[in-house]
Amino acid sequence: MTHPTTRRTLLRGSAATAALATAGLAARPAAAHADAPRKPGAGGPRIGILLYDGYSLLDPTGPAEVLSRLPGASVTMVAERRGPVRTDTGDVAVVADRSLAEAGRLDVLLVPGAGNRGVIAAMENQTLLKWIRATDRHTRFTTSVCTGSLVLAAAGLLDGRRATTYWASAEYLEKTYDVTYVPERFVESGKFITSAGVSAGLDMALHLAARLTDDDTARAIQLAVEYDPRPPFDSGDWRRASAELKARALKLLEDSQV
Amino acid sequence: MTHPTTRRTLLRGSAATAALATAGLAARPAAAHADAPRKPGAGGPRIGILLYDGYSLLDPTGPAEVLSRLPGASVTMVAERRGPVRTDTGDVAVVADRSLAEAGRLDVLLVPGAGNRGVIAAMENQTLLKWIRATDRHTRFTTSVCTGSLVLAAAGLLDGRRATTYWASAEYLEKTYDVTYVPERFVESGKFITSAGVSAGLDMALHLAARLTDDDTARAIQLAVEYDPRPPFDSGDWRRASAELKARALKLLEDSQV
Repeated sequence: MTHPTTRRTLLRGSAATAALATAGLAARPAAAHADAPRKPGAGGPRIGILLYDGYSLLDPTGPAEVLSRLPGASVTMVAERRGPVRTDTGDVAVVADRSLAEAGRLDVLLVPGAGNRGVIAAMENQTLLKWIRATDRHTRFTTSVCTGSLVLAAAGLLDGRRATTYWASAEYLEKTYDVTYVPERFVESGKFITSAGVSAGLDMALHLAARLTDDDTARAIQLAVEYDPRPPFDSGDWRRASAELKARALKLLEDSQV
Repeated sequence: MTHPTTRRTLLRGSAATAALATAGLAARPAAAHADAPRKPGAGGPRIGILLYDGYSLLDPTGPAEVLSRLPGASVTMVAERRGPVRTDTGDVAVVADRSLAEAGRLDVLLVPGAGNRGVIAAMENQTLLKWIRATDRHTRFTTSVCTGSLVLAAAGLLDGRRATTYWASAEYLEKTYDVTYVPERFVESGKFITSAGVSAGLDMALHLAARLTDDDTARAIQLAVEYDPRPPFDSGDWRRASAELKARALKLLEDSQV
């Protein structure tokens, strides 16, 4: 049902075909399998994303999609133990390919957020916090999405800094830690870049891509993942949300979590 | 380092706290483990997301994040065989919790996109195409993200329909199948909803959430995942991209894939 003669251009607009004529399918390696080793990094940034029980799925996967397009980058999911780590809803598991001990030095550490259960457990998990502190000593950037900033704060890394977090956790962040909450999609303070809730990790990751390379590379990645957002509704900004909508959003979150 | 007295409000804005006072942490079940059964569906939609070797990570995970917040919904990753399925970059594996044979009837089927290697293999995989056709017979909505629409088209489901796909695959879609390409973030045609590239699955999923419930529920989900996109660059629209930027985007994709 497919046409062999046009297959090679399956993912290519005609304008780009000429530029890519030398990079055809024939040059591809054989199909990788589920247990195949990841591609060798070619001098690009080593990015580690920490998974822990009860994280929100988009927090690690949105940035992973963006950052894995950086030239030579390796993106590795890391957890206390290798193996599947389930999300807050219990619906989905992403595999941690390396344990904390196997992660090695990272150029970028990303800590995702989670629902109440997951983030509280992470904030009280001294093994996790100790590893975060040790890893942070060698990173170029230490980053978070959503309530991941609470975990960074619990590790003592955000003292005296400006940061952002999930909208409903902002008050907790400011009251509990020596952190000034800034209601932006992402906030860079020293080498720390924190993001607002869940989907904000995509915006942060594009910014981080630019910081790791240059603006033009980040722009190309944005086009590569066709990130031209046009949500069909306009209710993502908590500052313009009614108390009723906020309560409803949090109720949906609560009810969806295991 | 955390304050026990404020923990219960960790994820709650003060405006919403009153409404949620009855749903505290104390009522939560014990922590779920990686191999824990998923939460039982409570009459909500049964959503199945097809994974196949070489998919793009955000294609299934963005919509899964959104759709898993629907009241009573179950979101299940499905693949030919149970177990980890790796992305196009080889960096990340998501676990398929059910095989095709175990998936059962679905209210919603979502087919993600992939790079050249993955999508061509899927379009030629008769087992996959047969399952897609059989599953589609009972769905309320059959949907795709990115080049997932090529797989739906290969299964013969988009004949005579309007649809969208990844920007660089639009020409291929129109030339190969009896499909009219529409350059929108998502296109609904009958019960088929196709999305543009990668990140467009988030926009489609919010629309789908509204179709499965109502606009107010979709708005609450948008706030729950704080989807108030503010990308730091404005290069996600291929119609406004230079030939050079398009070539660069596709080169980054090629180079990032195994």
